[in-house]
Formats: sequence, C-alpha cells, structure tokens
Amino acid sequence: MGQTDSNKPRAVCLLSGGMDSAVSTAQALADGCEVHALSFDYGPRHAVELLAARRVATSLGLADQRVLRLDLRAIGGSALTSAIDVPKDRDAAAMGVGVPVTYVPARNLVFLSFALALAETIGARAIYLGVNAIDYSGYPDCRPEFLDAFAHTARLATAAGAEGGARFEIRAPLVAMTKRDIVLRAKQLGVDLGLTHTCYDPAMVDDLVHACGRCDACVLRLKGFAEAGMRDPVPYLPAAERRTRGG
Amino acid sequence: MGQTDSNKPRAVCLLSGGMDSAVSTAQALADGCEVHALSFDYGPRHAVELLAARRVATSLGLADQRVLRLDLRAIGGSALTSAIDVPKDRDAAAMGVGVPVTYVPARNLVFLSFALALAETIGARAIYLGVNAIDYSGYPDCRPEFLDAFAHTARLATAAGAEGGARFEIRAPLVAMTKRDIVLRAKQLGVDLGLTHTCYDPAMVDDLVHACGRCDACVLRLKGFAEAGMRDPVPYLPAAERRTRGG
Repeated sequence: MGQTDSNKPRAVCLLSGGMDSAVSTAQALADGCEVHALSFDYGPRHAVELLAARRVATSLGLADQRVLRLDLRAIGGSALTSAIDVPKDRDAAAMGVGVPVTYVPARNLVFLSFALALAETIGARAIYLGVNAIDYSGYPDCRPEFLDAFAHTARLATAAGAEGGARFEIRAPLVAMTKRDIVLRAKQLGVDLGLTHTCYDPAMVDDLVHACGRCDACVLRLKGFAEAGMRDPVPYLPAAERRTRGG
Repeated sequence: MGQTDSNKPRAVCLLSGGMDSAVSTAQALADGCEVHALSFDYGPRHAVELLAARRVATSLGLADQRVLRLDLRAIGGSALTSAIDVPKDRDAAAMGVGVPVTYVPARNLVFLSFALALAETIGARAIYLGVNAIDYSGYPDCRPEFLDAFAHTARLATAAGAEGGARFEIRAPLVAMTKRDIVLRAKQLGVDLGLTHTCYDPAMVDDLVHACGRCDACVLRLKGFAEAGMRDPVPYLPAAERRTRGG
C-alpha cells in the first residue's frame, strides 16, 4: 500500500475487484484524493473477486484497503450468495428487462452504509462507487435517483451532518458510461484490467482462474472490450469447454 | 419460536435486546404482523445485549430471529466497539447536547439496510425499529427526518420498488415517546422488561449481569421507570460498588 498524505482530501472507494470499481477508484486518485478502499468478503463464492480487489488496491498504491466480512447468507435471496444457477448466454439487451436473479437485495445500500460509517470515522467526505446505469444489468440500486436519495439520507444519518459540518458526496464517475467508455477510461487512467475479475461463475484451469464468458457480467464486459476495439487480458474458458458446462 | 401464518403481513423488526426494540417488536405483534426479528452480533462487548435479544424473541414467540455477525471493528470509531471509556453520571439534559462518544457511525443506517435486504427477501413490507427522538441521547440517526429519507431511499434501492410493487414502510412506533411512555407501553403490551438489557458497561456479580446505573443508557432507563412510578426489574450494581468503578 502507499502512504497517507494529509494535504489531500480523503475518499472512501468501494472496491469489489471488478472492472468498474477499479476504474472508479483510479478516478478518485486522478481527482487528487487520498484513497481508502473498502471491500466486502461475503462468502467463499466471492473469494476470487476479493483477491482481485487486493491486487487492484496494491497495483494502484492506495493509502489503505479494509476488508469487511459479511454473512449475507443470513439474508439469502440471490444467485451470488446462495446455491442457485447463474443465468447464461443472455444478450445485453435482455439484461435490462426486469431484475436478474443475481441481484443481492439492497446490496449497494448495505455497502454504501458501511462506506459512510468508514468515511465518518476517518474524516472522508467523498464516497466513490463504480455503478453505471447504462449497461447496468437491471439492478435497481445502480440508478442515479437511488444515489441522490442515499446522499440525502447520509447527511441526516451522521454526526457530521447533524452538527452542520461538511456534507458527504456520493460520486459515481461511471454512472453515465457504457462498458466501452469504461474500458477506454481504464486505458487512459492506466488501470490494468487484467488484474480485475468480473465473472459470476469462474472455473480453474491449470491453476488459473478463467472467466465463463457466458454470464451477464462476462457478456457485458466482452461487449465493452469489443466495442472499444481492445482485447480483454483476462483468460476465458475456450468455447468448446464452455458448452459442456451447465448454466 | 412461534409459527408462521400466511394470513398475516410480514414485518422485519430490528431487535437489539434493549428496552426500546423489545417494545417496538411487541408493537409489531400487536399490529397483527408475523414478526421476523433481525439482531446483530458486533463483537464480544455486545454479547450480553445479544443474549437479551434472544430471550426477548423467545418470550414474544416470534416467527423467526436471525442474527447477523458484523465486524464493525474494521470501521472503528466508537466506545461501543472500541476500547475507550463509556461516559458516566451525565444527567439526561446534558445527553441531548452534541453527539456522544458511544455513537457508532451510521449504525442505524447499516442496520436498516440489512433489514431492508431481509424484508425484500422474505416479502415483508414493514420494518420496525425502536428509536425515539425524545430521550434520544444525541444520536443523529434516530431522528424522524432520517427515517423518512431512509424510506424514500429504500423504495429506490430495491427490486420491489423498481418494479412498481408494494412500498416499504419504516415504522418507529416509539419515535415520539419519552422513556416513561415506553415503560408504560411495555406494561400495556405485556413485555417483560426484566429480560431486556440496556447498560453500556455491565458487570458480573454472582454470575448475574448487573447494569452500571451510571452510563447514559442506564440514566435514561432509570429515569423512565422513576417517572412511570415503577421499579426496574433488572439488577443494578449497589451504589457503593458503583463508586469504586472507573468511568
């Protein structure tokens, strides 16, 4: 990790290990912030993504990365935390319709609440998160209206707000970007997307994590790289292998 | 635990083990709800309160009680989770001034976010919590403005809200009550307040948990019982013993 710098404003960045949060975090650095990353460990299914978050945090030289363990299984209700099948081979247009089964109830609200708690504790006034509402895969808590409502709630929830102090800003620098824009912004900011992990259903091949290439997250990511005219550096399962797997 | 009843609307009740959340939960039962309690385990300092939550859940015959483990130490910032001294012997009027060191940053926001996640998962539309803004001990996230803002955010954060489904209601039946009112309401609803635990700094005497009688929470609780003309059934440290302890 890098060092702290008292001349810079502090920011809490939600860092999942995915492409979007890596770019959003790099944007906070580019905006001149001292970055304190917050990641969540919510069960074994999530371990690969968490490793990616650590790699990204190290690579960006962040001031600090904290990992908060959450037992979302006590809540249940999603393919990402329970043992139900991740949908495969849906095209990007179909994903915008309805709420996908990979939806974790109120997940961004839970994550932002912890980010706010950390921001108040360390004296940060900005919270960055990597949501985007364009290729957003149907998650309700990625919409700008949600983020505005949260910012208002945050001001009322905290001692800093209650005492008339500085206000919290919720920054979602990718909110109006397509996946293509995000891939291009990553290049511009020098983010190594080969360190990130996006797939909902990865497999190990020769001790190396391979993305499935077929879940909603992979389909959107690959579309972004294709439209940016770039090759995704992470390894994918070969097409022949993919067909023999369920989903 | 009691049984579920599909004819009743479901409610998620935040149940801490304290007096207020016990009465708020009993109010949900009185309102005709099938009650699913949600409690949080945030570290060893909190074990006594959590035991009280279990006793209350059993005594009320709730449909369900879930305990979610949280590591708030990764966030830090409060006497309730860190090893700093709990203030003692402040009178009730002084507590309303400023934000106390026992404040956990954004705690109610974090708890409500999980309650919302559970509500969405089990199809509950009401969330009960036992906050009150009268004898509220200075916590910003106990104010009605905060609760209204959260309800608005909840509608935008969830799939149910996104799909135009039923709206979530945040119910704080004690919000306008004094501690005296709460003691009297407990009696009316048949809540055994002897099962609840309020003290921030309890001690074991003869294998029995004793409240300190001097922290903000004890002072408010004792004031409530005194004003209601009732005796608090929980054991307190004898006055002589109290003086020899720090704080």
